[in-house]
Amino acid sequence: MTSITLLGEAELRNLVPLDLAAIDQIEAAFVALATEAVAMPPILRLDLPAHNGEVDVKTAWLPRLDSFAIKVSPGFFDNPSLGLPSLNGLMLVLSAKTGLTEAVLLDNGYLTAIRTAAAGAVAARWLAKANTPHVAVIGAGEQARLQLRALMLVRRVEHVRVWARDAASALRFSAEANNTLGVRCDVAASVHDALAEAEVAITTTPSRTPLIEAADLHPGLHITAMGSDAEHKNEIAPAALAAARYVCDRAQQTRVLGELHHAIAAGTMRDDAAIVELGQVIAKQAAGRTSDTDVTICDLTGTGAQDTAIAALALQRARAAKAGTTFGNGAPLK
Amino acid sequence: MTSITLLGEAELRNLVPLDLAAIDQIEAAFVALATEAVAMPPILRLDLPAHNGEVDVKTAWLPRLDSFAIKVSPGFFDNPSLGLPSLNGLMLVLSAKTGLTEAVLLDNGYLTAIRTAAAGAVAARWLAKANTPHVAVIGAGEQARLQLRALMLVRRVEHVRVWARDAASALRFSAEANNTLGVRCDVAASVHDALAEAEVAITTTPSRTPLIEAADLHPGLHITAMGSDAEHKNEIAPAALAAARYVCDRAQQTRVLGELHHAIAAGTMRDDAAIVELGQVIAKQAAGRTSDTDVTICDLTGTGAQDTAIAALALQRARAAKAGTTFGNGAPLK
Repeated sequence: MTSITLLGEAELRNLVPLDLAAIDQIEAAFVALATEAVAMPPILRLDLPAHNGEVDVKTAWLPRLDSFAIKVSPGFFDNPSLGLPSLNGLMLVLSAKTGLTEAVLLDNGYLTAIRTAAAGAVAARWLAKANTPHVAVIGAGEQARLQLRALMLVRRVEHVRVWARDAASALRFSAEANNTLGVRCDVAASVHDALAEAEVAITTTPSRTPLIEAADLHPGLHITAMGSDAEHKNEIAPAALAAARYVCDRAQQTRVLGELHHAIAAGTMRDDAAIVELGQVIAKQAAGRTSDTDVTICDLTGTGAQDTAIAALALQRARAAKAGTTFGNGAPLK
Repeated sequence: MTSITLLGEAELRNLVPLDLAAIDQIEAAFVALATEAVAMPPILRLDLPAHNGEVDVKTAWLPRLDSFAIKVSPGFFDNPSLGLPSLNGLMLVLSAKTGLTEAVLLDNGYLTAIRTAAAGAVAARWLAKANTPHVAVIGAGEQARLQLRALMLVRRVEHVRVWARDAASALRFSAEANNTLGVRCDVAASVHDALAEAEVAITTTPSRTPLIEAADLHPGLHITAMGSDAEHKNEIAPAALAAARYVCDRAQQTRVLGELHHAIAAGTMRDDAAIVELGQVIAKQAAGRTSDTDVTICDLTGTGAQDTAIAALALQRARAAKAGTTFGNGAPLK
C-alpha cells in the first residue's frame, strides 16, 4: 500500500514563494550539474499540430536529492480563444530510491516560473558586477516581473528601465514596479536606450529576431537571456553573443535551443568551442566575470535539474507543513 | 478552475479487464500507427545507476482520440529487497485539444500489462493460421498468463505447452491453466519440445540470450515475441528471425530495442531492409501471412500509441461509471 500526496497551485504558491531559499536551491542544482553525476536526458517533445499544441517532458536525477521530478509542460496556443491559458502543466515527484510516485504537483506552471526566475538571480549573483543599481528589463510579462523580483533578492537595484514591443504592457510593468517593488522604473524608448546605463539586462521575450545587437553592449554589462528556450526563439544577435563572455545553463541544450544555436548557425561562434556552464563558474571550475569591464551573457534554456530541485523543495515543505491531499494507491501489481 | 480525476489500481482493474474490447482498442491503435499522422516521439529514458533504477516515459498522440497518455514506467531492481515490486508506474491523461490534465491513472503498471497482452492477441489474430489448437508459451510469469488469456479471446486453443527456466514456475503456470482456463496444459522439457507441435508460440521472458533457434521453426508456426523491449534483451536467434516473415509493432523501435536489433547486429538482417509493421498488415497495406506454411514472427516492443489507446478507454469508462476521485486544481496561473 502506497500513498501519493496531491498539491494544487494555491498550496504550492504558499509553500514555495520566490525567496532566497528557492534561489539557493536552484544554485545548488547548478553546482550539482557541474560537479556530480547528474542524469539529465534530452527533453521529450510531442507535437500535436492539429491543435496547435506541444508538450515537453523534462526530468533529471541529482545524486544529492532523495526524489526527482518528471515535469510535463503543455503549450496549446489556441487555448486563449477557449478562455484557457496557453501554458499549464504539472510535475510528478518520484522517490530516487524506489521509483514510487510520492507526489503530484498540479502547479499549472507556477514552479517552473519560480525556478526560472531563481536561475536568473543565480546568473546575476555570479556574473554581474557587485554594484548593479541600473537594470534593463526587456519584455514585460509575468516572467519579467519575477526576474526583477528575484534579482532584487540578490542585488540592490535603484533604477529599472523596461522596454516591451507592446508599449501598454511596458507602462503597466513600470507602474507596478514603482508601486509595489519600491524601485524607480520608467519605460525606455528602445532596447538600446534601456541598456545604455544598465549593469544588468534581462531578456524575457518570445522574440524570433534579435533584440540586442553588438552595438548595444558596453563594458561591465551583464545580460541574462531567458527567452530562448526553443529553436526558433532568438533575443541576442550572433555578433553580440560572440563579443561577450558566454556562459550557459547546459551546453548540450543551448547548442540546440538557446542563443548559442543561432550564433553557431551564423558562424560567429564555433560548434566545437569549449562552453562554460553556470555551475562550473559557481564551483570555481571555470572563470565567469574577470573584471568590471567584461561583458557577460548567460544563456538560460531551463533544465530538468532545476525542476527536480524546486520539486524536491516543494515536497519537503509540504511534508513539514502536512499540506496536500493524500490519495491511497491500492495494492501494487503482483 | 479545472478538475482532475484520480483512479487507483483497483478501480482500473474493474474498469479495464482483459477482454475483446481492449483487444479491439489496441488493434485500432496499430491501424492508426500505419494510416494516420500519429505523433510518437522516441522514448525518454532516465537512468539512476546509484539505485539500480531506470524510468521510461512514453507518449503518443493519435488524431482519432480526444486525449493522449504520458506513461511513466519506473523499474527499480533493488525494490524486492525492500519488499516492494520492481515495476510500477502511472499514466497521465491529457486533453489533445487543450493540453489540460484530465486524469491520473495510478495503475502500478496494470494498464501496460493489459495493453501488452492485447497486442499479442492482435498479432495472433492477423498473423497466425486460422486454426491454432496447439500453443507454446515460453516464460511463466504474469505476462505469460495474460498473453494466453488474450490469445484465447481470439483463437480456439486446446493444448498448451509451457517452458520456463524455472521449472517450478512452469509447473504452477500449467496447474493454473488446467484449473482456471479450461485448457490442457503441460510442461515441456525444452523450448524445442514446447514448439514442436505449436501453431502459435509466445515468448515472454527477460532473456538476454536467444531461446528460439532457427532449428526450432517449422512450417505454419507463428511466434509473438514480447520479451525484447530493451537493448540487452533477446529471445529469438538472429538466424531464426531472418528465416521467418518478420513483422513488428514499430520499426523505429525494433531497430534499436527489439529482436530486429540483434539480427541487424549479427548481420542476418539488413539495417535498411523495408520492415512491415503490424498496423500495415491490418490495414492491408502490406502482406502478413500468405499461406499456411509461412513462418511468421511478430516483434513487439510496446508503443506509446498502445498506452494512449488503453488510457483513453480507461478514462471513457471511468466517466461513464462516474468512477474515481475528483481533485480541484485551483485557478490557472495568470
